[in-house]
Amino acid sequence: VKQIVQCVPNFSEGRRKDVIDSIVAAMSGTPGAQVLDTQSDPDHNRSVVTLVGAPQPVMGAVFHGIAKAAELIDMRHHRGTHPRMGAADVVPLVPVRNVTLDDCAALARQLGDRVGTELGIPVYLYESAAIRPDRRNLADIRRGEYEGLSKEIATDPDRFPDFGPPSMGAAGATAIGARFPLVAFNVYLNTSDIATAKTIARAVRYSSGGLRCVKALGMLVEGQAQVSMNLTNYRVTPIHRALELIRAEADRLGVTVTRSEVVGLVPAEALLDAAKFYLQLHDFHPDQVLENRLTDDGSDDE
Amino acid sequence: VKQIVQCVPNFSEGRRKDVIDSIVAAMSGTPGAQVLDTQSDPDHNRSVVTLVGAPQPVMGAVFHGIAKAAELIDMRHHRGTHPRMGAADVVPLVPVRNVTLDDCAALARQLGDRVGTELGIPVYLYESAAIRPDRRNLADIRRGEYEGLSKEIATDPDRFPDFGPPSMGAAGATAIGARFPLVAFNVYLNTSDIATAKTIARAVRYSSGGLRCVKALGMLVEGQAQVSMNLTNYRVTPIHRALELIRAEADRLGVTVTRSEVVGLVPAEALLDAAKFYLQLHDFHPDQVLENRLTDDGSDDE
Repeated sequence: VKQIVQCVPNFSEGRRKDVIDSIVAAMSGTPGAQVLDTQSDPDHNRSVVTLVGAPQPVMGAVFHGIAKAAELIDMRHHRGTHPRMGAADVVPLVPVRNVTLDDCAALARQLGDRVGTELGIPVYLYESAAIRPDRRNLADIRRGEYEGLSKEIATDPDRFPDFGPPSMGAAGATAIGARFPLVAFNVYLNTSDIATAKTIARAVRYSSGGLRCVKALGMLVEGQAQVSMNLTNYRVTPIHRALELIRAEADRLGVTVTRSEVVGLVPAEALLDAAKFYLQLHDFHPDQVLENRLTDDGSDDE
Repeated sequence: VKQIVQCVPNFSEGRRKDVIDSIVAAMSGTPGAQVLDTQSDPDHNRSVVTLVGAPQPVMGAVFHGIAKAAELIDMRHHRGTHPRMGAADVVPLVPVRNVTLDDCAALARQLGDRVGTELGIPVYLYESAAIRPDRRNLADIRRGEYEGLSKEIATDPDRFPDFGPPSMGAAGATAIGARFPLVAFNVYLNTSDIATAKTIARAVRYSSGGLRCVKALGMLVEGQAQVSMNLTNYRVTPIHRALELIRAEADRLGVTVTRSEVVGLVPAEALLDAAKFYLQLHDFHPDQVLENRLTDDGSDDE
């Protein structure tokens, strides 16, 4: 059975095109791993690359990217509005198909070991790959950013890395972790009143009493109120549940949903779950999706 | 770009397991073609096999199946409740991915030529592969079944085959065609009153004024009223539109939908269309589905 993982490394360079291209090139051309997307933000001075493929090829490709970033980015001169502590700043591994979150955590630790040992970069394991509970949250690891961590890494035992040396070079430190696929899901309302969007966002998000795996903000996009969400685990909090709660709250406030959008990529399963919910397909099995029955070579060996 | 077609040959044997197994074996083992499913009905005395894969391998595999059926089934002795005219009775080619219905029509004609020439079986092209307008409808071709067609094929020019000889051997005749994937979609109601299901079926089906690509019957399944449907083109009449019409009619009659079911296989696109409708994802693009972005070998050459 073919395994597929996704890796979304964040690099601390969003302005110099030649540097970004070199890092992406270092991750391309590994058979079995595929660069799907690169997005660079000059203000953040940061690029986010999406890699997918079989576990070991993806691990090899992202290692080459981390090495190239360490070679070309000097964190002592890096400026940008996004928090950061390393040239390869954050490297999450994400399960896509026939892979568990635990599998991805094991891969993250394997990659962390290699980055620490072979590249001499301090590595912190985060989220589901964390081996210290105080390192599950990325923000806690990145506290003080490159400059603050440089001062404390050698002397504060709480800041010793999980792999690699307790000292910061020009490449800084890298957080490597495992997490579930994020779904960026936005819902537009038939109003230009941002307060309405903020009220609904408060109702739906976990931090103020809403759904377990929803982060939400109310904002105004081209004059239209929008509830902007990150669904951090669509298996626990599915898309349709977030939308139905928004529809109920919108109704109470006398507004309606005009449309919604998924930003970027979404696993097929998250949308099939929505179809199952709305069509009341209670006993539907993923094997009934024709494409899920195709083996990669079309042969009969499944 | 990888092309995938589906072929669903119907063979006139649903009782003798050794015969069915031999026909399926003849279609297995072709690299690039895969037998997904075999369903045999003893009352119909008929088996339906689902093959998928690249066009030419599927064509090769199904040709071997037709040849084996002609060798093992003698239509002069065939009895069953389902209309039939040949050992390989009906062979529809169905587009799945990166293939059009016209492509499948061309494949059907190519296969028909080969079956007529190499196996000496009369072949009729039907539905989207038909080259005579009076042969689009399978029921018109199969009129009189094996026995009736045997009498008329040599003498009635309207019944001359499109390929192969105008004479019937023990293998009978074969209809080869191209059609869109069928979706078998059933909706259950919270009543045991079959009349309610029949009333709703009449409202939703094309033949009595309903939706263009819906065939529907009202029936009782384990004491529960069911609207049983075949959606003959889910791009023209999507699943959600059929369901919403049923919900509206059910509401008028004071009943509700308790659940629905898809029987057998369904293309992912049909369910993604439902998710898009109910989530109001107006601008969603299939490329945003992560799995749709994966090349078969995981390489970067897309």
